[in-house]
Amino acid sequence: MRFFSDNAAAVCPEVMAALAAANSLDTAYDGDRWSQRLDTVFSELFETQVTALWVATGTAANALALAALCPPWGSVVCHRDAHIQNDECGAPEFYTHGAKLLLGDGKGAKLTPDIVHGLIDTIRNDVHQVQPAAISITNATEYGLVYTPDEVGALGSLARERGLGLHMDGARFANAIVRLGCSVADVTWKAGVDALSFGFAKNGGMSAEVLVFFGDKHRQTTLYRRKRAGHLLSKGRFMAAQVLAMLDNDVWLRNARAANDAATRLAAAAGDRLVLPVEANEVFLRVGADEARSLRDQGFDFYDWGVGEARLVTSWDSDHGAVDRLAAAIAAL
Amino acid sequence: MRFFSDNAAAVCPEVMAALAAANSLDTAYDGDRWSQRLDTVFSELFETQVTALWVATGTAANALALAALCPPWGSVVCHRDAHIQNDECGAPEFYTHGAKLLLGDGKGAKLTPDIVHGLIDTIRNDVHQVQPAAISITNATEYGLVYTPDEVGALGSLARERGLGLHMDGARFANAIVRLGCSVADVTWKAGVDALSFGFAKNGGMSAEVLVFFGDKHRQTTLYRRKRAGHLLSKGRFMAAQVLAMLDNDVWLRNARAANDAATRLAAAAGDRLVLPVEANEVFLRVGADEARSLRDQGFDFYDWGVGEARLVTSWDSDHGAVDRLAAAIAAL
Amino acid sequence: MRFFSDNAAAVCPEVMAALAAANSLDTAYDGDRWSQRLDTVFSELFETQVTALWVATGTAANALALAALCPPWGSVVCHRDAHIQNDECGAPEFYTHGAKLLLGDGKGAKLTPDIVHGLIDTIRNDVHQVQPAAISITNATEYGLVYTPDEVGALGSLARERGLGLHMDGARFANAIVRLGCSVADVTWKAGVDALSFGFAKNGGMSAEVLVFFGDKHRQTTLYRRKRAGHLLSKGRFMAAQVLAMLDNDVWLRNARAANDAATRLAAAAGDRLVLPVEANEVFLRVGADEARSLRDQGFDFYDWGVGEARLVTSWDSDHGAVDRLAAAIAAL
Amino acid sequence: MRFFSDNAAAVCPEVMAALAAANSLDTAYDGDRWSQRLDTVFSELFETQVTALWVATGTAANALALAALCPPWGSVVCHRDAHIQNDECGAPEFYTHGAKLLLGDGKGAKLTPDIVHGLIDTIRNDVHQVQPAAISITNATEYGLVYTPDEVGALGSLARERGLGLHMDGARFANAIVRLGCSVADVTWKAGVDALSFGFAKNGGMSAEVLVFFGDKHRQTTLYRRKRAGHLLSKGRFMAAQVLAMLDNDVWLRNARAANDAATRLAAAAGDRLVLPVEANEVFLRVGADEARSLRDQGFDFYDWGVGEARLVTSWDSDHGAVDRLAAAIAAL
Repeated sequence: MRFFSDNAAAVCPEVMAALAAANSLDTAYDGDRWSQRLDTVFSELFETQVTALWVATGTAANALALAALCPPWGSVVCHRDAHIQNDECGAPEFYTHGAKLLLGDGKGAKLTPDIVHGLIDTIRNDVHQVQPAAISITNATEYGLVYTPDEVGALGSLARERGLGLHMDGARFANAIVRLGCSVADVTWKAGVDALSFGFAKNGGMSAEVLVFFGDKHRQTTLYRRKRAGHLLSKGRFMAAQVLAMLDNDVWLRNARAANDAATRLAAAAGDRLVLPVEANEVFLRVGADEARSLRDQGFDFYDWGVGEARLVTSWDSDHGAVDRLAAAIAAL
Repeated sequence: MRFFSDNAAAVCPEVMAALAAANSLDTAYDGDRWSQRLDTVFSELFETQVTALWVATGTAANALALAALCPPWGSVVCHRDAHIQNDECGAPEFYTHGAKLLLGDGKGAKLTPDIVHGLIDTIRNDVHQVQPAAISITNATEYGLVYTPDEVGALGSLARERGLGLHMDGARFANAIVRLGCSVADVTWKAGVDALSFGFAKNGGMSAEVLVFFGDKHRQTTLYRRKRAGHLLSKGRFMAAQVLAMLDNDVWLRNARAANDAATRLAAAAGDRLVLPVEANEVFLRVGADEARSLRDQGFDFYDWGVGEARLVTSWDSDHGAVDRLAAAIAAL
Repeated sequence: MRFFSDNAAAVCPEVMAALAAANSLDTAYDGDRWSQRLDTVFSELFETQVTALWVATGTAANALALAALCPPWGSVVCHRDAHIQNDECGAPEFYTHGAKLLLGDGKGAKLTPDIVHGLIDTIRNDVHQVQPAAISITNATEYGLVYTPDEVGALGSLARERGLGLHMDGARFANAIVRLGCSVADVTWKAGVDALSFGFAKNGGMSAEVLVFFGDKHRQTTLYRRKRAGHLLSKGRFMAAQVLAMLDNDVWLRNARAANDAATRLAAAAGDRLVLPVEANEVFLRVGADEARSLRDQGFDFYDWGVGEARLVTSWDSDHGAVDRLAAAIAAL
Repeated sequence: MRFFSDNAAAVCPEVMAALAAANSLDTAYDGDRWSQRLDTVFSELFETQVTALWVATGTAANALALAALCPPWGSVVCHRDAHIQNDECGAPEFYTHGAKLLLGDGKGAKLTPDIVHGLIDTIRNDVHQVQPAAISITNATEYGLVYTPDEVGALGSLARERGLGLHMDGARFANAIVRLGCSVADVTWKAGVDALSFGFAKNGGMSAEVLVFFGDKHRQTTLYRRKRAGHLLSKGRFMAAQVLAMLDNDVWLRNARAANDAATRLAAAAGDRLVLPVEANEVFLRVGADEARSLRDQGFDFYDWGVGEARLVTSWDSDHGAVDRLAAAIAAL
């Protein structure tokens, strides 16, 4: 019973069916009829004109987004616990050709305008110092919290005021939207976001994420960067088909809702053990070493998170019975 | 009736079945049981210990290989018509952090020791000049010719003698092996090859290629480079499963044989129109503009190749009837 | 008696005096009163508003210029014998983060519009191919020929038409100007040049070159790149002072004239042995191995240039007697 | 009366004389007789075989050193206030092709083994995380403190144990040595230092620093990197001559002693206002805004350092009278 990562989840049936349906002769790269629909479909979803490009990983989406927003001599403000800092082996530095990440603290991996000010206000505007160029936030965060449209908007205002780009790492964007109940526009471009890494793989996809730019300013250069990074797959139709299948009939929201609901059930059982509120599909628990062992002995698999904490991640396909058993086991600790 | 690229071909049924079979909960990234088998399976295939890493594109495989073999201040000798020079938007330069490609001429996109000597022998061994570090050849070449084990061996000897790495771009390696009838060992490491980009996507796969290093010297650094480039997919089991399915029962050879046979049938019809011998799955024809239009009017889709030439590419799933009709149409020109 | 490089020449007395005169307390980096005059002084010289930045080497000037004109996924057209290709260990690739150089042929290391067309017209405008972004020419060339304003203008027109930047490597710009007798404006921005590496070190300076951009479009980003490359010297006043001293009273022209005159005297002695016309301060001679040895035995130091040729370079301080003796020795061969 | 930077100081007479003495025809780049002596002279000084390369700036020396010690996917532990982090516009990231700096806190910009452990011990040894590769310390620090041989040795032991390189930014190395009274060997290679940026420019040089590697492991690659970065000056003899002149007769120590003595006199006057002990040539004072204004009104020039602090930097040529007047003015505040 695996609760260690939504990356370990299966691929949802609609995606598998879409792969089969796309398996006919078509044009290579992104000239096929599926890929060619992405801009339109995502523009409708976001209620504005967007550039929507598939890539195979969230790391590639994030790094391409940051390369568009930040020059080699710039810096990107992010949280100290951000995926781009801790889990991408320096992909942002590789793609930006050497930009810096400026690391902020903040509860639950969330940035606030105050934190950003604290990082950038002391930077002298001279050539000796790397200049701030962008802010990157993760929604839902690496700790399972969500940014509301207002919270994003406050960062968006600061970004505009200071001439910074705003990137949102949405590896779990669907989980955030389900929680927020807002439109996808509200929490992105309407709040000042310039680029969104829209995650599908953790949410039931196989190997496709979508990099969304609001507007087309960064389209042309990003197309070159994507190719140059080896991320223009030759049979791109299988990338686009995954994504389109998940947008059809709101499969992406259905999947995320299932994951969030499972996490909520675990949270209810956890009570005071919760390190943070559960707002998406991640549950952080205080557990002693013996307790963690006990849970593992009962067949539950998860990550230890530092000392005395455990991270449980639910997914679109989390087995109801397993979730119930885990909830009971937590309650019984 | 599409003959413009084997990238446009469908995915073969064994791969589709393998994707379905791999669709269960497992570990993320490359810790799953499919990915974990790659080294073993490829080591058996190549009769020596290899490092076998999946990546999503041939461009990524090539660029990672070259980054392993060539420092930023080095150069890679390749043919002027090589894919790494013409069709990867500078991926080798991106991954190597700015190495140069030294461009040789040679019939059918093939390098010879003489050509390599002509490029590197005049380079002074001082810090003012970028130093040669590797040779990259494509087998089968971009013009559908194959390098024999002896031909590769001659380049391998030169490489060893001069301290250069030897990389083989095997986007159509299967087609070359079918043609050569030799073991995969004969034309790679036994002939001095250090790294092979082993193509599967053009040959019936969906989105997986394998970067093979002979030995493990470059394993650790390449694992970092792969992650850093955003090429460590989160659900890597679907990458490995594709490849394993194609190695099982020699599906990869069966597929390539079908493609080669189709090309051979077209070649027989083409007679004097052939620009080059047909040794794999590409046919280059001399055709006038009117003739090209006539073929297109009959429903055949292909690339013009410079002035007065056309490129026809067959694939594992080239329709027999379509091939026969095209052969007849060519003969009737 | 050294004729192998103008890099080996001494520093002219005006520069030495200027270094002494600048040796007082002042502001660091480029905030000092010498550095602050550069834009003004060079704008007057060029009869237009320019950005003038000192750097310590021609390689840095060239690489910074190309980084401003060419993105990482772009290419720079240059001659196969260009210094940026052969003698800078890949600095352009380092500073541009991996652009390509496209190599043209042409007598005496000169490009023509036809040669440029031959290199760029076959490049498809798609993301698979590195797109041409700039042309770089050297004036005087690596073979001692000069581009006239008309010749530069023809390339400038092509550049404008195709949206390319135009860079001039002027390591021996002074020698070219002396030969041409035109204004510096005529052969640069009036002819379409965007950036000039204006050389001083070979012409009697110690360690300063000036990167000139016509206009200020690239000023801000280049200031960051220069610092980031470690080329913002802490005592920049000694850089600016060298250059200002050479512009004062046209010392730069006087020095170049002396070098050109010495080369002309050698050329007159060489007669049919000349490989190319002598238009600046380099003389390429056909000499047999025995003849070269004979010259060396007489105390003349120079480079062999391929097989059967020798390169003689004169400088601002070439000793008159030594030049006469060499001229006589050549005539006597 | 300038106390804002030792970069603003004049060039000492021995260096000026050496430049004049080197002003004769010689070989270009670093083939001249001055440059060729560097390895020997520095090996004697350090009592071990070293590689000694001139560069024009401390930024270049630091960045080249770090590029030798840290791969693109590695990180360098340094203090949050380190010059490499705050004052080099990302040069380390540029030269390393995108490594990270890990920022530690510590009084007076000094790292300790505990601080380093705190930064690296939580890094998982997997490909998702950038791996620590080096430690960089500054001696004397940016806050004018010195590391003793024992303190360096403790970091050196940790570095060896964890397979990290150890770099010392010695922009004010001379000031540290004067304070420590130890041999240069004691505080460098004998304490585990792999690379030293040995500063001369702040200490009376004009434009030369020396990058010292202990041993020759990094020589060859660094020669290529230096050239590729545009830091191989064509008239390198003027670089080497500066340095040799400062080593002759211990001019470098004499100069540093003068600077340190001046700082000590200011410190004595400052009493309780001192933010930190004065161990080299920098004095950090607590001063109110009115007090700072008063000092400036009396003609003293210095940097404000955050809120309520001022930085005073003395140099080899600090005027005795000016120092005395400033000391009196501080005492009178």
